[in-house]
Amino acid sequence: MVTLDKIYHAAFVLKQVARKTDLIHAPNLNGLYLKTENLQLTGSFKLRGAYYKISQLTQEQRDAGIVACSAGNHAQGVALAASRMGIRSVVCMPDGAPISKVESTKALGAEVRLVKGAYDDAYNYACQLQQETGMTFIHPFNDDEVIAGQGTIGLEILDQLADVDAVICPVGGGGLISGVAYAIKNLNPSVKVYGVQAENAPSMAESVKRGEPITLETVRTFADGIAVKHPGDTTFEIVSKYVDEVVTVSEDEIAAAILALIEKQKLIAEGAGAVSVAAAMFGKLPIEGKKAVCIISGGNIDVNILSRVITRGLVTAGRNTMLQIALEDKPGQLLGVSQIVSECGANVVNVRHERSDANMAITSCFLYLGMETRDFDQIREIRRRLTEEGYKIVN
Amino acid sequence: MVTLDKIYHAAFVLKQVARKTDLIHAPNLNGLYLKTENLQLTGSFKLRGAYYKISQLTQEQRDAGIVACSAGNHAQGVALAASRMGIRSVVCMPDGAPISKVESTKALGAEVRLVKGAYDDAYNYACQLQQETGMTFIHPFNDDEVIAGQGTIGLEILDQLADVDAVICPVGGGGLISGVAYAIKNLNPSVKVYGVQAENAPSMAESVKRGEPITLETVRTFADGIAVKHPGDTTFEIVSKYVDEVVTVSEDEIAAAILALIEKQKLIAEGAGAVSVAAAMFGKLPIEGKKAVCIISGGNIDVNILSRVITRGLVTAGRNTMLQIALEDKPGQLLGVSQIVSECGANVVNVRHERSDANMAITSCFLYLGMETRDFDQIREIRRRLTEEGYKIVN
Repeated sequence: MVTLDKIYHAAFVLKQVARKTDLIHAPNLNGLYLKTENLQLTGSFKLRGAYYKISQLTQEQRDAGIVACSAGNHAQGVALAASRMGIRSVVCMPDGAPISKVESTKALGAEVRLVKGAYDDAYNYACQLQQETGMTFIHPFNDDEVIAGQGTIGLEILDQLADVDAVICPVGGGGLISGVAYAIKNLNPSVKVYGVQAENAPSMAESVKRGEPITLETVRTFADGIAVKHPGDTTFEIVSKYVDEVVTVSEDEIAAAILALIEKQKLIAEGAGAVSVAAAMFGKLPIEGKKAVCIISGGNIDVNILSRVITRGLVTAGRNTMLQIALEDKPGQLLGVSQIVSECGANVVNVRHERSDANMAITSCFLYLGMETRDFDQIREIRRRLTEEGYKIVN
Repeated sequence: MVTLDKIYHAAFVLKQVARKTDLIHAPNLNGLYLKTENLQLTGSFKLRGAYYKISQLTQEQRDAGIVACSAGNHAQGVALAASRMGIRSVVCMPDGAPISKVESTKALGAEVRLVKGAYDDAYNYACQLQQETGMTFIHPFNDDEVIAGQGTIGLEILDQLADVDAVICPVGGGGLISGVAYAIKNLNPSVKVYGVQAENAPSMAESVKRGEPITLETVRTFADGIAVKHPGDTTFEIVSKYVDEVVTVSEDEIAAAILALIEKQKLIAEGAGAVSVAAAMFGKLPIEGKKAVCIISGGNIDVNILSRVITRGLVTAGRNTMLQIALEDKPGQLLGVSQIVSECGANVVNVRHERSDANMAITSCFLYLGMETRDFDQIREIRRRLTEEGYKIVN
């Protein structure tokens, strides 16, 4: 059973390893307060639950070692926690896991077993290992000690912002929000606790609606840290009892939140970590005029994905654009276009010139022009000038 | 004159506005400690000096308003400081300044005057304004109160890490390092203080070498926050007296440091803010085994530039690659290549197929394939498989 006692005890134990992450006020980001667990060791809050859980094992259990299954943040939390306590850890990962996560987990001291298939296959293999070897399986969320460990974030928030009105929390399996809601509602029931999921992986949101834990067939979100098909029974129960509402956000809303955190707060959040901010930015919750804390649960985003999020955000904001221009196939055309673009102050980053297209007159060609722009006004100005000078903008 | 008294006084005054930014230990980033002034309000340390300076003006001076010249962080620092104190501020900026910086400065309450030309033109215009209107000019670095304000970072570091061995500090005009070095050396002379500049803008490094302030003809670095042609006389004097060494880093080293801060620490630094980490990462300083604090002075990087830094870093790390393949111009070729790439587990993000090239046989064409890859091993594997299957890789 989760108790306040256990959460306080976890806070004491975690002093040895976890950072008390900063709570940052963001006046230029909807006035939100950000609990920066992306700046936690291992890049996410998962270290807290894993460390507290493992610290409570008996000597016999410690000697036998531990096993976990994760393609992400839990893996790193378990690895660091175990190696700090001198315990052998085996982490099972699906073989498609990003090499960067595999390497980080190894670097933190775990043995990594790559299992052919998806998460479920790695999970089954981990269970098999547990049965064959007697190692203790560390569940990523459906475990009282793990939940108590995550609950320490709730204590810290109450300490860092005593008059907080609402806490907004990412939800995957529900371990984080269970701990946070339990701590906060038991200490100050007037504080609202909200959960946020990706709309493409709404397992907890749907479960709460139906009044029982449901299982999703597929989850498809780039917020992989909360792509969970099925909440735990313990977490479902705690969320049902303590959480005021669980809402969802779209992939584009998550991407916009990541970009806003980068530009306005200089913080990297992963998709799962940014859903709380997305929900606040896009008005999903009644927090107008309230002191609301968004938990940024983690920052472990693949840089390739980050790069795409930024690109998409730039296009959405009019700061990057691609024009397709139909040119007559004669000398001097590229020069003319270049001159106009340059006079308008845009920066060309990409040029493609294409002749063969079934839809084109045989004497014409297409020019594709990728540019860094200041804003939509500048793009409109470039289009206007080009049109005035007789260039035909196709797209 | 800068004095410890003044710095302590600044620390007291700044309690009203500046954040005591977190000092974060980064075990996986060379064991460095990071003083996160990128998480300061306005995204850089500049708020400190500007606020303290303005707070010390007489009522008459306050009534007359203030003027500053900056295309970047100083502008935002001055704007926020002045509006917090209810003082009118005019910030002169070169008209090529990024729209995002202009908008941020306005949003913080300053009147912005865009001046045709470069920084020097905006500076001259600001001086003219000062003379005509009696407004007080707030210098970005060569000013005792400004230096004292920045010096509060030195006090905070000593408080946050009492047994620090070395502090590594970005250097542009020298305001930050002057304050920090003055505070630290006067309180604990055994702590080393190092400065870092971009090798394309080494005004302070060269000045210290020659024993007198020099002026660079041109500065060309994407670390625009430290692209300063000429140190101040006050800052030059303090740096000469207190700073142990000023080193330089290359543009690529700065980019690598930015990427490392993103991936390992989930922090966005601008070029100027990352030079301290770059110097530590690339062995420019004798800090092996020492407790070294890197000041991340700011995080206001243009997202377009950030996007390029990430892309370059990905290519450098083998996580993004472009292949140019010579194909025979017949059906099924693209399919064959796609199959191999897919079997190797890479993710195609960009395809271009080109026929006309003077260097090519008339029956062949080029395929350009942009891919997200895991590492150089995977790229080698793809190349090997393609070559085995008879495809000719040109590049």
